[in-house]
Amino acid sequence: MEFIEGSVCAARGFSASGVHCGIRKNRTKPDLALIVSETTASAAAVYTKNLVKGAPISVTKKNISDGKARAMICNSGNANTCNADGLEIAEKMCSLVERYAGIPAKDVIVASTGVIGQPLNVSVIEGGMSALVSGLSANADIAAEAIMTTDTKRKEAAVSFMIGDKECRIGGIAKGSGMIHPNMATMLVFITSDVAISPEMLSLALSEDVKDSFNMISVDGDTSTNDMVSVLSNGMAGNRPITGRGEDFDVFCKALSLITKNLCRKIAADGEGATRLIECRLAGASDEQSARTAARAVVSSSLVKAAMFGSDANWGRVLCAIGYSGIDTDPEKIDVSFESANGRIEVCRNGSGVDFSEEIAKKILTSDEVVIDVSLNAGNSCAVAWGCDLTYDYVKINGDYRT
Amino acid sequence: MEFIEGSVCAARGFSASGVHCGIRKNRTKPDLALIVSETTASAAAVYTKNLVKGAPISVTKKNISDGKARAMICNSGNANTCNADGLEIAEKMCSLVERYAGIPAKDVIVASTGVIGQPLNVSVIEGGMSALVSGLSANADIAAEAIMTTDTKRKEAAVSFMIGDKECRIGGIAKGSGMIHPNMATMLVFITSDVAISPEMLSLALSEDVKDSFNMISVDGDTSTNDMVSVLSNGMAGNRPITGRGEDFDVFCKALSLITKNLCRKIAADGEGATRLIECRLAGASDEQSARTAARAVVSSSLVKAAMFGSDANWGRVLCAIGYSGIDTDPEKIDVSFESANGRIEVCRNGSGVDFSEEIAKKILTSDEVVIDVSLNAGNSCAVAWGCDLTYDYVKINGDYRT
Repeated sequence: MEFIEGSVCAARGFSASGVHCGIRKNRTKPDLALIVSETTASAAAVYTKNLVKGAPISVTKKNISDGKARAMICNSGNANTCNADGLEIAEKMCSLVERYAGIPAKDVIVASTGVIGQPLNVSVIEGGMSALVSGLSANADIAAEAIMTTDTKRKEAAVSFMIGDKECRIGGIAKGSGMIHPNMATMLVFITSDVAISPEMLSLALSEDVKDSFNMISVDGDTSTNDMVSVLSNGMAGNRPITGRGEDFDVFCKALSLITKNLCRKIAADGEGATRLIECRLAGASDEQSARTAARAVVSSSLVKAAMFGSDANWGRVLCAIGYSGIDTDPEKIDVSFESANGRIEVCRNGSGVDFSEEIAKKILTSDEVVIDVSLNAGNSCAVAWGCDLTYDYVKINGDYRT
Repeated sequence: MEFIEGSVCAARGFSASGVHCGIRKNRTKPDLALIVSETTASAAAVYTKNLVKGAPISVTKKNISDGKARAMICNSGNANTCNADGLEIAEKMCSLVERYAGIPAKDVIVASTGVIGQPLNVSVIEGGMSALVSGLSANADIAAEAIMTTDTKRKEAAVSFMIGDKECRIGGIAKGSGMIHPNMATMLVFITSDVAISPEMLSLALSEDVKDSFNMISVDGDTSTNDMVSVLSNGMAGNRPITGRGEDFDVFCKALSLITKNLCRKIAADGEGATRLIECRLAGASDEQSARTAARAVVSSSLVKAAMFGSDANWGRVLCAIGYSGIDTDPEKIDVSFESANGRIEVCRNGSGVDFSEEIAKKILTSDEVVIDVSLNAGNSCAVAWGCDLTYDYVKINGDYRT
């Protein structure tokens, strides 16, 4: 398996496009994206667990209830959530894909991201449809930009791998930034693949995958209303269709995991205002759920995040976060080390501090990517979670987002 | 019932003192506090739920297991937590009270607050004991200062009330600031009273009270290792002792609640870097637990807190926080208004936005104290939670706290 150039157009039969239709005031920022498969594809998605769900979520759920879809449309700048006419608008967006691209409305995955509770003017979207459809190409860059909100970088990844004697591909684009938290925060991920796989197995692969990928990232602890990870897999690689568990399914899951974890790191590293990626590698937990819970608590702690911003080796806050995470473990067995491209240093053994060089610790913690390596010494389960530091800019970005 | 001047020395028979003993480098900041009752008092405390508990917590628990105590000693600058010799040091602090003030070590409540995982040098504390004890007086100001960490203001309150024909008093001091969160975050509260009440009823009153007071405040979502609310009640008011439920107990609980809620507001308003107090009044929940959970979720949301800093009427984030709080409610029934000394404005009805003047909303949200008034319209239970805005200064204070 190897990473290759590209993203949602890396797999055979997919094209993408993006335009500025006018939802956002800034004319240089595209705000409407479209991804299309040449043929009808198996479709699966996982959604936010927030009780308050964006209208697009409901429409997408309905449209892929038969396990099939052919297109994904997404706007940024407005979440189409908590509006009285939200469902109608989301349905209308699918109808526009039917009218302008000839793909049945019921085969469209629809998503919106941005401010909650402001009416979305669908005629603005309609005005951009013609250019959107005529712009469809093998280059997904503008689509990746069009889904961004406060993101500072496009998030793209693609991988090539073999199933039997067929070369297959999976690629994806993502938006993240604020409100990225376990259980599908304000995060949108669109994944495409040319593997032949049944809707059931695609759905199983995705739901297993998110437990260790998108549900393990946190930017600020808030779980948003709109967010979704969706996959289309159109079978154009020509492999023997995957319809059950087995070696081919395992290969597919492994390839999917490369894409999702790669996008996770990119989402966390580009958290609002973030200056560095924080990865918590938690080992020695008594069970998987405890491992995930503790790892997430560490990367979600405002105090750990602020310490990481200041490159302060404040390991007490790491223990504190594990202590309130709700897992059952013996604090006096916990070991903590910090690691980065600049080195590795042990700071806590058996729940107590060890002597360490503040200077070396500082150097390790000033890296772009810092690993907090925790061992609970209570079992054999482990988990990895991703987050970012808490910075002045996070506050600035979120202090007046809406106006 | 009326608020009166003073704090832990308002009740009869209590004296307090504070000194700079040298745990903190800044010689103008006292770092050691002592509160003493003339007679042995009923004692009760509630503690952090963090698995990682400071050594002083264990020693206090043991010392008040008989329901009695006479003194409270507390240092700031070092949490005496996650140190191999923590228990020994905490025991030593109690012995010092015995040696210098003649109060049995087993009748001492001990607390520490500050950095986790750095050895606490008890000889420094010993060096300050003589001045600490000789400074005992009816003025609790220096004690209130000595327990502060990143707090910017002393937090004190006292109330006078009648039980039968006896005038009684309750007073308290608190430290809060960082890591203030439901379930006893890094927060220390010392309360004294001259009411005659059995240890059992005192403990009951306190444990009932914290559900609606200290467990309903949040500064940053982190629950700390050390924190504790403790009460001494010495009976010197001469009321008929409270040994069971009834009118006298209700009066005591009401007076206690005035003190605790007053201190809660002061703690939240002085959250690290905070520029304003946020109060979420949540009504119409299906049950009490849901009301508390939802109210806490609102004041704990980083996005709500950042919006409050920017005086941005982003009510969508309020709905979003309720949506992920874990309670079961119908989002389409939720109403939200903002209120302050500058006015009141409805921003969301039945889960959708209503037209409102951004100018008026901004004016309301620039007040020092802002109320987020939520009705779930799903039942008759309500709750109040307190928090503060998330500011640049929060990040600054926590980015390099330890070094």
